[in-house]
Amino acid sequence: MSSQLHLNAFLMGVGHHEAAWRHPRTDARNVLRAGYFQELARIAERGKLDSVFFADLLSVGSRIERNTQTTFEPITLLSAMAVATEHIGLIATASTGYNEPYNLARSLASLDRISGGRAGWNIVTSVGADEAANFGYAELPDHAGRYRRAGEFVEVATALWDSWEPDAVVLDAATGIFADPDKVHTVDHVGERFTVRGPLNVPSSAQGRPLLVQAGSSESGKDFAGRWAEAVFTAQRSIPEGQDFYRDVKARAVAAGRDQDEVKILPGIVPFIAESEAAGRRLEREFTELISPEYALRQLSQMVGVDLTGYPLDAPLPPLPPLEKIQGNKSRYQLVKDLASRESLTIGDLIAELGGGRGHRTVAGTPEQIADDLQRWFEAGAADGFNVMPPYLPGGLTDFVDQVVPILQARGLFRTDYTETTLRGHYGLRPHIGRYARVVAGVGG
Amino acid sequence: MSSQLHLNAFLMGVGHHEAAWRHPRTDARNVLRAGYFQELARIAERGKLDSVFFADLLSVGSRIERNTQTTFEPITLLSAMAVATEHIGLIATASTGYNEPYNLARSLASLDRISGGRAGWNIVTSVGADEAANFGYAELPDHAGRYRRAGEFVEVATALWDSWEPDAVVLDAATGIFADPDKVHTVDHVGERFTVRGPLNVPSSAQGRPLLVQAGSSESGKDFAGRWAEAVFTAQRSIPEGQDFYRDVKARAVAAGRDQDEVKILPGIVPFIAESEAAGRRLEREFTELISPEYALRQLSQMVGVDLTGYPLDAPLPPLPPLEKIQGNKSRYQLVKDLASRESLTIGDLIAELGGGRGHRTVAGTPEQIADDLQRWFEAGAADGFNVMPPYLPGGLTDFVDQVVPILQARGLFRTDYTETTLRGHYGLRPHIGRYARVVAGVGG
Ligand SMILES: Cc1cc2nc3c(=O)[nH]c(=O)nc-3n(C[C@H](O)[C@H](O)[C@H](O)COP(=O)(O)O)c2cc1C
Ligand SMILES: Cc1cc2nc3c(=O)[nH]c(=O)nc-3n(C[C@H](O)[C@H](O)[C@H](O)COP(=O)(O)O)c2cc1C
Repeated sequence: MSSQLHLNAFLMGVGHHEAAWRHPRTDARNVLRAGYFQELARIAERGKLDSVFFADLLSVGSRIERNTQTTFEPITLLSAMAVATEHIGLIATASTGYNEPYNLARSLASLDRISGGRAGWNIVTSVGADEAANFGYAELPDHAGRYRRAGEFVEVATALWDSWEPDAVVLDAATGIFADPDKVHTVDHVGERFTVRGPLNVPSSAQGRPLLVQAGSSESGKDFAGRWAEAVFTAQRSIPEGQDFYRDVKARAVAAGRDQDEVKILPGIVPFIAESEAAGRRLEREFTELISPEYALRQLSQMVGVDLTGYPLDAPLPPLPPLEKIQGNKSRYQLVKDLASRESLTIGDLIAELGGGRGHRTVAGTPEQIADDLQRWFEAGAADGFNVMPPYLPGGLTDFVDQVVPILQARGLFRTDYTETTLRGHYGLRPHIGRYARVVAGVGG
Repeated sequence: MSSQLHLNAFLMGVGHHEAAWRHPRTDARNVLRAGYFQELARIAERGKLDSVFFADLLSVGSRIERNTQTTFEPITLLSAMAVATEHIGLIATASTGYNEPYNLARSLASLDRISGGRAGWNIVTSVGADEAANFGYAELPDHAGRYRRAGEFVEVATALWDSWEPDAVVLDAATGIFADPDKVHTVDHVGERFTVRGPLNVPSSAQGRPLLVQAGSSESGKDFAGRWAEAVFTAQRSIPEGQDFYRDVKARAVAAGRDQDEVKILPGIVPFIAESEAAGRRLEREFTELISPEYALRQLSQMVGVDLTGYPLDAPLPPLPPLEKIQGNKSRYQLVKDLASRESLTIGDLIAELGGGRGHRTVAGTPEQIADDLQRWFEAGAADGFNVMPPYLPGGLTDFVDQVVPILQARGLFRTDYTETTLRGHYGLRPHIGRYARVVAGVGG
């Protein structure tokens, strides 16, 4: 554990709260404006945050009527944000299920070069049947198969990123040489699902390759994180749970032969920031009251794998299917199930509780209280940093940057200025060197 | 034919000439800088050009040692250029061979929204075996199969772009409605190669959908252009040849039920601009002398389908394989073959002749002479406009914009300011309305 924590701003539409876009503090039309997202990146950069991040889905899902998330593809949008900023990291979610490794590795490498080494990839396997239907699948591929494909996909992508050694480009006009062919390698991958010769057609960036991020919390998900992830987003409700998860993923990283500091654990937090705790709770309630129960019921139905349409809001959840039957997001299912039984919540309670961050922890209070909370988690070894999920935007981000960050800085818990130029650097990692360069330099096998 | 011509700037590395990056007028390091490409877009916009365009390959090809083309993926790069400009169109090449229609349609739609309706797609089937090898193919899929796939691909992509009617997004905070579900349609495509449910998860842009561009000149390529293309890039060596091609593609458009004005024909031109014709020729020669014969021989070998390594430069071409054997770029093969026999060129002559624009027409002279040349082609009905391929960058583009464009404007042949906001608008096309909206409005079937 380092002495300073890391902060990622998870950007979503006009805020993470279910009903954000109906609240007067937001302007829903912003979701259609690239300039708005550039402005969010600049706000986060003003706060010296490590990175901004977009989730992604390959379908409209159930969100045509009621939500405002899917208006841009993340990599193209982050490219526009890259040229509006200088320091902040830019993390795109992209699916291993429905891309070709060559294409995705290349788009991310291109973003990485455009941004000067600030790109990251949140690796997801995609859990929606409606996504599968856009790519020729009659149903969602099963959980184990998705993670097998993800493993092979990341092997190919990382090999492609290594295919250009850091000093391969020579650009020697006198001899006419662009790159040294001895430093550009084919990858010659022949696997179960992919056959890819390489090399990639984008030279490596200042950070060597994009930062690898992951957010699956199932057993396979955590194994995958231990093997590959350099940052992990996760929904954790309490410090003891957070500590368990933290130790668990770090142990898997060590078991995979990595140093435990090479993977940063970032639980989510949805902060309602106000001048008093009571005002924070009032603000949260204002948002809760704007939730459309009908739409929220549909969302909850998806999480628990039971169609809840028509159920009364004051009733408890009906019996749920066993975990093995859940082909989608297993860990979110478990979280909701545990929460409902532990706190004896009705369906209506659950909807309010999940409204802020779909299961992520909501904290309402003064900037000091938020900072105290983050410090507690950090010092308890439950987090290396946080995935900050502003309930409404841009206000919730502006308040965090202008009111919470300065407190963390005053306490020595957060950088007061950028000291590194790349995303890997912000997260305390060295530039990635690549397998071929390592051999040549004799640093390892 | 309209009374004004269209101009596209085909951007490639530090210029189209084979040896551009060895010439003192260029700085080869620019190919690694996104800011350089933003600057090129701003120069083109200063000249009120219709669009800028990037070619693309899904491999490093033979270009690791000797060339500087493949440093960014076009769509991500154009996104960075979109936010540095306000008017100019942004055309990305992307392959129908090695993408999923949902992903590509989405990235282009995202670029289209980021740019406010300025995106275009140069549709290619990809002709390299080294590209195929990055996507699991042991060899290049055959020509006919590639065009069949392209046809189905474009059907799916255009259906996805139509899936959001222009007024589908309502963003009504009071009722909680983001989009009107009756105006967002599934596409339910079930075809030979693709099964895609839709809808797309990006609403339609100000121009309805990206401009469709095409550059294949084989029979299947021209049929495809007639059916789909709104702009066609082509290599034509003389006005009579240009007229034939022009009439041919327009006739195919009409045969496909379209208006002949719906497809603009843009032959390529590589202009060496100088204060006199002699100075223009001297400048061209400077570049020719910097060509690496070894590398140029490899390029020529690819074009003609024969390995010419070791052949003397002063010898004529050996007998070439018949057209049917060429699985790659058939029209470029034909062009080179005709050129060599018609003008009795040696291999060395061919290398010099092709060095400027790989078969595209080179013109050296004063700004007036270049303008005269363009006017002649335009008024002879051999072109609706031109694909301007500066031999070196940025100088060759700056000279064109500052010296040739004003002459065309003074003659009434080119716009003096943008009158439209979208790429389709620049090319004289109305916003695309989409199949569903048409039915509702009763404008057609
Ligand atoms: C903060 C956070 C963000 C996530 N973002 C995405 C996303 O954008 N797209 C997606 O398909 N899944 C997303 N997920 C879900 C997971 O990455 C993962 O796909 C899912 O949990 C299923 O994996 P599991 O069964 O291993 O938990 C996210 C999860 C978390 C905690
Ligand atoms: C100006 C111009 C630009 C082209 N750009 C590309 C390109 O970027 N990528 C590509 O694969 N083919 C490119 N081509 C080739 C064609 O689009 C097409 O794929 C090729 O000619 C094979 O089709 P054909 O056999 O129908 O001619 C280009 C052609 C021209 C004239």
